[in-house]
Amino acid sequence: MSKQGLTVRSAGTCCTPISEAALDPAQAVEGAALFKALSDPIRLRLMSLIASNTGETCVCDLTDKFDVSGPTISHHLKVLREAGLVDCERRGTWVYYWPIPETLRRISSLLAVPAG
Amino acid sequence: MSKQGLTVRSAGTCCTPISEAALDPAQAVEGAALFKALSDPIRLRLMSLIASNTGETCVCDLTDKFDVSGPTISHHLKVLREAGLVDCERRGTWVYYWPIPETLRRISSLLAVPAG
Repeated sequence: MSKQGLTVRSAGTCCTPISEAALDPAQAVEGAALFKALSDPIRLRLMSLIASNTGETCVCDLTDKFDVSGPTISHHLKVLREAGLVDCERRGTWVYYWPIPETLRRISSLLAVPAG
Repeated sequence: MSKQGLTVRSAGTCCTPISEAALDPAQAVEGAALFKALSDPIRLRLMSLIASNTGETCVCDLTDKFDVSGPTISHHLKVLREAGLVDCERRGTWVYYWPIPETLRRISSLLAVPAG
């Protein structure tokens, strides 16, 4: 994905917030793809389970928390991975997932609004 | 929308970040709806145009920035309004929009990750 036009601001904020400058069409396409990855309740909950877990999360600990099939969970995890929100590694029988904080921080920064 | 389980933390953060606690199914449904509202490039750009403008934004200043019809813009603005991201008022011929910072802050807080 292109990072053109995204301004490095400080450790906590990586992008110019939309409350400070309007996105150009290319930035909007890139940003909307990130929001889309989190726009499904199962994916958002998977993301929160992975992000709130210290260290890695085994897929075996995720599937039993949902009333949907294993392949459905795998599909949603793939969407999160392709969006750069999580990464994973297969070890033996299971796949282990961990969050990519930079991507979460990037979305958060995009939405930052003045404290006032 | 239910705010059950969302913890008031400080002026800058209104919700428990997903990196601290996993969302329950109801919170995930509520959060995903907010992300969905911003998951379309036209809506995200509309949101950034409205949020980055000091004061109100006339719909007449929005439509000419997109290669889509007026009714399409109106549809997307309605989605943003129903999600609680903007509000509006009709005055004479035109409708004027302004952002609701609390909702942007809420999404941002949901994604907050430790600075480290």
